[in-house]
Amino acid sequence: MAEKISRYKHDLPISYTLGATLTYEAFKLRPELLEKVYISSETQIDGGIQELIENLKAAGIPVLRNDKAFHILSPKGNCYVIGQFQKERKKLSGGNHLVLVNPSDAGNLGTIIRTAAGFGFEDLAIVSPAVDVFDPKVVRASMGALFHLRIEYFDAIEDYIKRFPDNNRYAFMLRVPTPLPKVPIQKPYSLIFGNEATGLPESYADFCQSVIIRHTNSIDSLNLPMAAGIAMYEFTKEAFNNYN
Amino acid sequence: MAEKISRYKHDLPISYTLGATLTYEAFKLRPELLEKVYISSETQIDGGIQELIENLKAAGIPVLRNDKAFHILSPKGNCYVIGQFQKERKKLSGGNHLVLVNPSDAGNLGTIIRTAAGFGFEDLAIVSPAVDVFDPKVVRASMGALFHLRIEYFDAIEDYIKRFPDNNRYAFMLRVPTPLPKVPIQKPYSLIFGNEATGLPESYADFCQSVIIRHTNSIDSLNLPMAAGIAMYEFTKEAFNNYN
Repeated sequence: MAEKISRYKHDLPISYTLGATLTYEAFKLRPELLEKVYISSETQIDGGIQELIENLKAAGIPVLRNDKAFHILSPKGNCYVIGQFQKERKKLSGGNHLVLVNPSDAGNLGTIIRTAAGFGFEDLAIVSPAVDVFDPKVVRASMGALFHLRIEYFDAIEDYIKRFPDNNRYAFMLRVPTPLPKVPIQKPYSLIFGNEATGLPESYADFCQSVIIRHTNSIDSLNLPMAAGIAMYEFTKEAFNNYN
Repeated sequence: MAEKISRYKHDLPISYTLGATLTYEAFKLRPELLEKVYISSETQIDGGIQELIENLKAAGIPVLRNDKAFHILSPKGNCYVIGQFQKERKKLSGGNHLVLVNPSDAGNLGTIIRTAAGFGFEDLAIVSPAVDVFDPKVVRASMGALFHLRIEYFDAIEDYIKRFPDNNRYAFMLRVPTPLPKVPIQKPYSLIFGNEATGLPESYADFCQSVIIRHTNSIDSLNLPMAAGIAMYEFTKEAFNNYN
């Protein structure tokens, strides 16, 4: 029986986990989204992969030997297990949010998602145009943390604000007076970051508390995942140190 | 006249800046290290590139049209200017240090160097085995920040400690009791991080103040640049907010 395998596209209802560890992560977190798993003929069935296959079969998820899947989905090789999962679009809930305006790099977005999950952020708003969060490169760079978050796209920042008008908005920008360690933290908050190359427009200071993460003049800026990670650390560290 | 162009190797005395912006950065920061610059025949000579070429010529640095350099050094393309620079090995000076034990990923090392320069760290110790800091991938990921730092390799952590016995050593580890925001900061300090996959051996707690950056159980760990960046931010933020 021929399986139809499509290269990843934004408008498909499915995406892929490229790699055994990542596929296992998807299975552990959201087995109901996992439709099938491909195994290449080069895959050695032992250890963790054997365990994964047994668990998949016990859960009724088809495991298929199919080398074509690997030629189409992972032409560079170095990948022996691929999971196919349904995309799930969840609305954001109330509470603290991370907001990315026009993020353009898949690896960066995955790293940010992993860090967000690490600091207990469960809701990520993305303002379009932006990289597709279900792009297999994003899924891979998130190391599966994608499955922990609710992620919702908005056409414009105004649409996001209309939905969550009472969140305290903090816009991370260059050349503004308030440094991160001195900003008063008021919940619920939205931490807002701009595009990798262009940052946030200055107009964001009109409807947000603007914040700067100060650094030397030796660099133009911190990279986006670093700025977002440092901000998430600073905003959540009190909670993290009182929870034990 | 035929130019001999060698693919990058660890034991060569030279390395390369792949890209116009990066080459310009090297020229601005350390013109004395820049030996020559290659321009591909596809390079459009206008704007910033024209300015770069004029400045290079004024400084007596040869600018050569040579497509072979691009086939050898940047086979994937998308690069129209390559600088060749002398590697410079500088000894660390006293003061605060960043210490990386067995870092293995070129992109991560470059990102860490960029962030270190951003937070005013001027000295980076690397314990071997480790990725080569002059690998063009590291140079590129650092966005030129490499040229701001003194970087020295050590065969073992003991050798580093022998040279800087009085630095206060902070080892960033998982599963230790003291969280980053509560650690007493004493200068001069050395912030020490392990390999991407394995972290630091537990024995580091015997000769360092061990520190944890707490996060949820949703992720195994923060990625290495993120952990190092957050630590550098936390250790330097007082200074950054008093300097204006």
